[in-house]
Amino acid sequence: MPASGLERKISTINTENINLTKDPQHSNGAQKLNQNVRREWNIKPSKISARTHNRIRGIVESLKIKPNPDKPMIPLSIGDPTTFGNLRASDETMLAVQRCIEGGKYNGYAHSQGHEEARRAIAKYSAHQSAEEIKTENILMCSGCSAALEYCILALCDSGQNLLVPRPGFCLYQTLAEGLDIEIRYYDLLPERQWEADLRQLESLIDEKTAALLINNPSNPCGSVFTQKHLEDILDICERNYLPIIADEIYEHLVFPGSKFIAISSLSKNVPVLTCSGTTKRFLVPGWRMGWVIVHDRENRLAQAVVGLKNMCGRILGSNSIVQGALPEMLEKTPKSFFDSVINVLSANARLAYRILKKVRGLNPIMPDGAMYMMVGIDIEHFPAFKSDTQFVQELVNEQSVFCLPGACFECPNFVRIILTVPGDMMKEACMRMALFCEAHFKSDETIIEHGLLD
Amino acid sequence: MPASGLERKISTINTENINLTKDPQHSNGAQKLNQNVRREWNIKPSKISARTHNRIRGIVESLKIKPNPDKPMIPLSIGDPTTFGNLRASDETMLAVQRCIEGGKYNGYAHSQGHEEARRAIAKYSAHQSAEEIKTENILMCSGCSAALEYCILALCDSGQNLLVPRPGFCLYQTLAEGLDIEIRYYDLLPERQWEADLRQLESLIDEKTAALLINNPSNPCGSVFTQKHLEDILDICERNYLPIIADEIYEHLVFPGSKFIAISSLSKNVPVLTCSGTTKRFLVPGWRMGWVIVHDRENRLAQAVVGLKNMCGRILGSNSIVQGALPEMLEKTPKSFFDSVINVLSANARLAYRILKKVRGLNPIMPDGAMYMMVGIDIEHFPAFKSDTQFVQELVNEQSVFCLPGACFECPNFVRIILTVPGDMMKEACMRMALFCEAHFKSDETIIEHGLLD
Repeated sequence: MPASGLERKISTINTENINLTKDPQHSNGAQKLNQNVRREWNIKPSKISARTHNRIRGIVESLKIKPNPDKPMIPLSIGDPTTFGNLRASDETMLAVQRCIEGGKYNGYAHSQGHEEARRAIAKYSAHQSAEEIKTENILMCSGCSAALEYCILALCDSGQNLLVPRPGFCLYQTLAEGLDIEIRYYDLLPERQWEADLRQLESLIDEKTAALLINNPSNPCGSVFTQKHLEDILDICERNYLPIIADEIYEHLVFPGSKFIAISSLSKNVPVLTCSGTTKRFLVPGWRMGWVIVHDRENRLAQAVVGLKNMCGRILGSNSIVQGALPEMLEKTPKSFFDSVINVLSANARLAYRILKKVRGLNPIMPDGAMYMMVGIDIEHFPAFKSDTQFVQELVNEQSVFCLPGACFECPNFVRIILTVPGDMMKEACMRMALFCEAHFKSDETIIEHGLLD
Repeated sequence: MPASGLERKISTINTENINLTKDPQHSNGAQKLNQNVRREWNIKPSKISARTHNRIRGIVESLKIKPNPDKPMIPLSIGDPTTFGNLRASDETMLAVQRCIEGGKYNGYAHSQGHEEARRAIAKYSAHQSAEEIKTENILMCSGCSAALEYCILALCDSGQNLLVPRPGFCLYQTLAEGLDIEIRYYDLLPERQWEADLRQLESLIDEKTAALLINNPSNPCGSVFTQKHLEDILDICERNYLPIIADEIYEHLVFPGSKFIAISSLSKNVPVLTCSGTTKRFLVPGWRMGWVIVHDRENRLAQAVVGLKNMCGRILGSNSIVQGALPEMLEKTPKSFFDSVINVLSANARLAYRILKKVRGLNPIMPDGAMYMMVGIDIEHFPAFKSDTQFVQELVNEQSVFCLPGACFECPNFVRIILTVPGDMMKEACMRMALFCEAHFKSDETIIEHGLLD
């Protein structure tokens, strides 16, 4: 394109700017300009985008996987409970959404915190979270529980502060925090104590820059469910240290017979809790992106931070309006029998997998009490062919076409996570293959010493 | 709760920490600890949440509004085109979603960039944006166009950098950027030139810290549509200054007869463009939160930044899966007649409002060429009863129950924005009332001088 009159005019402006910068009042003006002038395409990603990483994807993509063509692939890695077709959303859920479409009344923008009616339904559905009535103004609907967590983390934590998160734990917390230069500090969950937090170690991590404690109960990947005593101990620590809690309770109520889910907010007297949940797991509709935050803060300790949290809702304007419209019916009409049947599948799979894997030399499954996962410890020193859980997983795929997520995905070496959402026969087949695989590679102490495999 | 054994153990740990800090190797250890110890609830909002503001909400909430009880309220302020019931999503759109619900196949998680099939449909639908074929890997589906804009701004701009945005302009750009301490620099759109950008002034804003130029075409609030020549001039500036473009084209194709919409990416030879769009406006489903980014970067100048942009999709995992499932059918089957009928409503309202308001002393409507809005200038010096467009708007509600958004919402004093999405009779009634209001308050130069109203 030839230089237009306009271009020439603009050149004049630029020259004026240069003259301005050369003004003797501005020391080093000309030199500064030389350094700073835009001379080339030099577009870098922002820090937040460069730092935003999905640990699971990174690890999985680094695997050299070639499933055994003679065995159909069983992906025990997929966190989406709808993948296998055995677990489906309830008819009530689907009908509620269908009615919203037919009515045509839910196409417009919702309030940035979500439709009032939907929030009223959430308040009722979440009554177990608080002795007091939950006010709709304290509910923020978000695009999935991920966005709920994002808003809580971003509203409470500043760059340079730190957030305490569980290890093993869901990698999203790290993904969300590190993008904004919020330091992640891991408190340990102890496999020998049903994945309770190591409270001594947890408290030792707290310093003046600790912005919040994040707990995930029931837990992904552990499938553990905290007892009342343990939740009270956690609250004690937070009270002593003036630390608010972000409670990721997306697996609320998903607990196996004999266990009990207790919302930490229901036990809190003075510690403010931001509870994140949604329909994803319990209603088997993860793709719908329907999540929410409920603010529990009777002492008003988060007052300003909650204003900030609500501001965050103005950024992308919440979640899908059709699902918002359907929510009251979904939450009220889905029968207990539906939830029970899902839990039955999960808990039967847990028992089945545990029974098989417990007998396998070199594996130490830890029986879960809820959620959709089981962690299986690997005595990696008895598998000298593999350097790590990652390599163990890789070769398990290559030989047996069974894919688990390596513990490395959850900052938990020498474990693998298996999902409990597959059909029962697939669960059994997968565990049998894992057993075969381990039998083939297990070396007893004697063998290892005999053959000098420890060198 | 009485101090438990555990608590005592924890106290021991804390004491150990104190001892550590007092280690003579750490100078001022004890003093530091005193300053830093957590002694009280002192939870501040994070900077990002405290800085995230919705300018429109702030201004509207500050108004002292009491609509005239004798006149039904006409809110010419609402940007949601579905509010009045005269504009409704097409049957094809609604049926497509209904079928997805019935099929029950779209409840699971989508790919973080969106379902492949949906992205293929977007590529086809957006063929006008590029001479080359659009690859699905260059499409990122987001929770509404707001999230698309958020990701583009956050992926290209770092804290401390600046982003050029139009004035008058949609306040979301500021909301999204300022939260992250990205400076907003306004380039002016000139009402006397059909809201073309003041290119001289625009280019004078560019410095070494300018991360991107954001354009919004067709424009909210101006209803303007840039000509090919003007878009080429903008590209020229970007090419000379090595500046990528974020193109907010959510109103693409929404142009009145006689005007033509051209996607800036289709004209770009070397300047990378991130185009944001979605179904919100054209398909009349704003609540569905279905937006996308298309990366146009044939010279690969954004390579690293696009990796960052894709990382961003891992934060909240995109948009509602049912709508994703319906998208191919929505985009392919909605007939031209539907889009035409929407445009007819908007353009008839524009002509009607212009005809009435043009004759009103003290008002200067600027005829739009597209989108859903008209800007109306106010000769505020002829309304000495009102200090500003904000007060003008406030009194217009109080006397005539007609609510427009004050220009202050768009950084554009002495204008008001009216929407064109109301039923025709409501449009007429609203404009007649505005005329009455202005007649009642207009003072000619003579009157003003006579009565010393200028003092």
